[in-house]
Amino acid sequence: MSGKNQEKRTEARLPKGMRDIEADEIRAVQRMLGTIREVYESYGFEPLDTPAFEYTDCLGKFLPDQDRPNEGVFSFQDEDEQWLSLRYDLTAPLARYVAQNFEKLPKPFRRYQAGPVWRNEKPGPGRFRQFMQFDADTVGTESVAADAELCMLAADTLEALGIERGQYVVKINSRKILDGLMDAAEISGEKRLIVLRAIDKYDRLGISGVKDLLGEERKDESGAITKGACLRPDQIEIITDFLSAELADSPPDDSTQNSGWYTPEGMTIAGDITLHGVEKIKDVLSTSNVFREGASEIGSMIKLVRAAGYDSTRISFDQSITRGLEYYTGAVFEAELIERKDGKKLSFGSIGGGGRYDGLIERFKGTKVPATGFSMGVSRLYAALQTLGKLKADGAQGPVVVLVMDRERIGDYNRMARTLREAGIRAEMYLGTSGMKAQMKYADRRGSPCVVIQGSDEQARGEVTIKDLIEGERLSGEIGDNQAWREGRPAQFAVKEGELVEAVRAVIARHKE
Amino acid sequence: MSGKNQEKRTEARLPKGMRDIEADEIRAVQRMLGTIREVYESYGFEPLDTPAFEYTDCLGKFLPDQDRPNEGVFSFQDEDEQWLSLRYDLTAPLARYVAQNFEKLPKPFRRYQAGPVWRNEKPGPGRFRQFMQFDADTVGTESVAADAELCMLAADTLEALGIERGQYVVKINSRKILDGLMDAAEISGEKRLIVLRAIDKYDRLGISGVKDLLGEERKDESGAITKGACLRPDQIEIITDFLSAELADSPPDDSTQNSGWYTPEGMTIAGDITLHGVEKIKDVLSTSNVFREGASEIGSMIKLVRAAGYDSTRISFDQSITRGLEYYTGAVFEAELIERKDGKKLSFGSIGGGGRYDGLIERFKGTKVPATGFSMGVSRLYAALQTLGKLKADGAQGPVVVLVMDRERIGDYNRMARTLREAGIRAEMYLGTSGMKAQMKYADRRGSPCVVIQGSDEQARGEVTIKDLIEGERLSGEIGDNQAWREGRPAQFAVKEGELVEAVRAVIARHKE
Repeated sequence: MSGKNQEKRTEARLPKGMRDIEADEIRAVQRMLGTIREVYESYGFEPLDTPAFEYTDCLGKFLPDQDRPNEGVFSFQDEDEQWLSLRYDLTAPLARYVAQNFEKLPKPFRRYQAGPVWRNEKPGPGRFRQFMQFDADTVGTESVAADAELCMLAADTLEALGIERGQYVVKINSRKILDGLMDAAEISGEKRLIVLRAIDKYDRLGISGVKDLLGEERKDESGAITKGACLRPDQIEIITDFLSAELADSPPDDSTQNSGWYTPEGMTIAGDITLHGVEKIKDVLSTSNVFREGASEIGSMIKLVRAAGYDSTRISFDQSITRGLEYYTGAVFEAELIERKDGKKLSFGSIGGGGRYDGLIERFKGTKVPATGFSMGVSRLYAALQTLGKLKADGAQGPVVVLVMDRERIGDYNRMARTLREAGIRAEMYLGTSGMKAQMKYADRRGSPCVVIQGSDEQARGEVTIKDLIEGERLSGEIGDNQAWREGRPAQFAVKEGELVEAVRAVIARHKE
Repeated sequence: MSGKNQEKRTEARLPKGMRDIEADEIRAVQRMLGTIREVYESYGFEPLDTPAFEYTDCLGKFLPDQDRPNEGVFSFQDEDEQWLSLRYDLTAPLARYVAQNFEKLPKPFRRYQAGPVWRNEKPGPGRFRQFMQFDADTVGTESVAADAELCMLAADTLEALGIERGQYVVKINSRKILDGLMDAAEISGEKRLIVLRAIDKYDRLGISGVKDLLGEERKDESGAITKGACLRPDQIEIITDFLSAELADSPPDDSTQNSGWYTPEGMTIAGDITLHGVEKIKDVLSTSNVFREGASEIGSMIKLVRAAGYDSTRISFDQSITRGLEYYTGAVFEAELIERKDGKKLSFGSIGGGGRYDGLIERFKGTKVPATGFSMGVSRLYAALQTLGKLKADGAQGPVVVLVMDRERIGDYNRMARTLREAGIRAEMYLGTSGMKAQMKYADRRGSPCVVIQGSDEQARGEVTIKDLIEGERLSGEIGDNQAWREGRPAQFAVKEGELVEAVRAVIARHKE
């Protein structure tokens, strides 16, 4: 085999947009998943796992990137020539599952699911083709209480992960408000999606960028041109007036009946939220029933979350939130991390989001099954927490390494490692062929607290030598290297074989001090 | 949208060979994964995650099903027309990772990985196209101590999962022994793989079945015909003589120098293992260097595991173990579950296995990087444990459900659920639109310990009613339904609102009694 391979060697390489995840990140993500799971479970959600791929028609085409309709997902054919696709989110498979198992499910059905999803999109820095999501969904209820609950769940989850108040915000909006806005601006058909995507970029491009995207075209700093929606000036004005309207907290109002109506104080969206600066568009907006319905729903959500003690620094209305996926029909929400540095507010962008998708299960069942969900972007969140320095120290320690001093005696060394393991101590026998120095270096690289050594001298005395690697490193930096011996904390010491476990335990306990 | 969908509804269906996994199994598997992880970590293995798919050429073609060379895996092309495949195991991606990161890794490199793998094979009962494996591998050492360690790790893992001694066995063999056997029988080229696969079926088909598969053809009970290897009768005799040789424990012998040599007592495979009934083939076998090398390695492994206290009921030699994958080069092992029922020994088949693959990383690097690994079949193991009744009771309890008696008051009900959650109790507000009776039924289906009720009467008195669903069910089956009230354990009782948490805690504590 080796002769052939020398001629034609395979290049070891990762597929584009993919990455390997190593020990520290895996352990940190495992802890994150445990925390998220705990919060989701506390809200009564139950776990579900669906397979990695589905029949393509079951997933539907709801990805934001409509420019490459067949390329947003990874697809292949099975032996019956049916098309299969790797899931691009956890919502579409849930819709398939619910439709298939509808009768046996308790309703409303609350489920959570964690797992990787795949997107056949252009990879970039921090933008991978496989990433992990952790979703919670409530299926079978139209109640805005379900939407409100998911926003509170999102806030609770972020806090459980160690993100403080003021460092995150869950922003909410409604596709109905945006639909009403587009009705008012007489935007129809395929242009709606283009406009939605332009609104979605408000955060990043500001009002002038959105204006360009709604008009002929937008030229970015590099000179690259994005074709615009080609709206009329009066249409553009309605959208940009709405987007740039200022929010003001009104005095809490127990009634949300007036949502979507203009009053001299501004346009009331929710009991305690008013939009200012919409004088010019008030008349067109007020005539839209769907706009008023959306505003009323958002009003009820805001009322519920406020009653539960979530103020506007934690959950707030934001008229520019759209969410990319096409299947949303009502409330949409987005969780954002914020860092305040030198008085400046830095956004880490969306680390999760979701919304109401009342039409997704209908595709299968024919009858409407309302549903709403929130998806936490675990991979993005991990990256953000790392940047923010919010990840707790690992706490994981490398294994104790039993050195091999005499290859004829690996049975004995193996037994020592085993004795340590049986006492609950992470331990291994060195399995390579190198000498003492390389073995010590190996133990160092593994982050071992100590190594266990038994050469022929020690064996003759019935002893083992324990070398404390962490203490040893500390001492090597100190003046007067005999001092530690006098203090009774030597970096290297011998004990009777029967005292191995006790002695290693003592060294490990030292490091935890 | 609904008009269109009524005409052409999508059928909600799972792809062939795939399945959904529901709450009980997910929780049980999570616990299993935690246990396996603990054992693997205790041996010093570190976690690694690789992506779900790789470039097809990086995975290589090592699947057992050579009849469908392009169909064993799920493959698709990326935008550069490079072929990608979903991983069919966790070993091939590890080889790619090691080759790509060789310089930075400590050597030997010990890693574990858990995750789904995909096989484009014919699905059947209990045979799925996606299943979970949990692997441990040691890369960069030729030492048989690494192989022996993995067998002990496998045994320890099964015991940690609650499988008792005598209910499992880790069987070992060596591809070198099998190669030597085939050298002796003058079998070469492509026939070797066919013979290996025939030997692999010895357990299931017995010696006559193997004979047929080595000859012209085998006809099964249904009359279906499998083409055989078309060997000469003398070749078949060598294979079947070897397979049907009886094992005998010899007195422990400190030397393994004689492995592979025939003595009057039989053919010594390992220090304490001798094959009887191989008189006719002793001469041809003894001339094979590779046979003797394999026998010597197995001898050293057996010696190591015996010294560590693993007897032949836990780890034993079995000359019929081959393992399907083509990349193995030395020791191969297989973990099997055994049930003894009415004196009969029932095998649950292989629930894990592995072996040495010294050539896999060489495909990338050009130089030999010896490696060995063990893979636990988590999905198979779960199914076996379930059949054996070995899965611990779930212990998970449904959420406390706060009923909605008055839709205008969901803010209050929501707050009650929140209060319970903040006290660490799993709780939710009912989110549907149904009445009291359906809400009670919902709580029942969710496995709720109790529901919390506050109608207008309770509200007026500042009280909540707690209905104990489990106690309630028990009482409904009893004669004299007032008895429980007298005993002070009523199934339904009212408390002041401020005592909600305390009262619910008391009900949950009752159920744990």
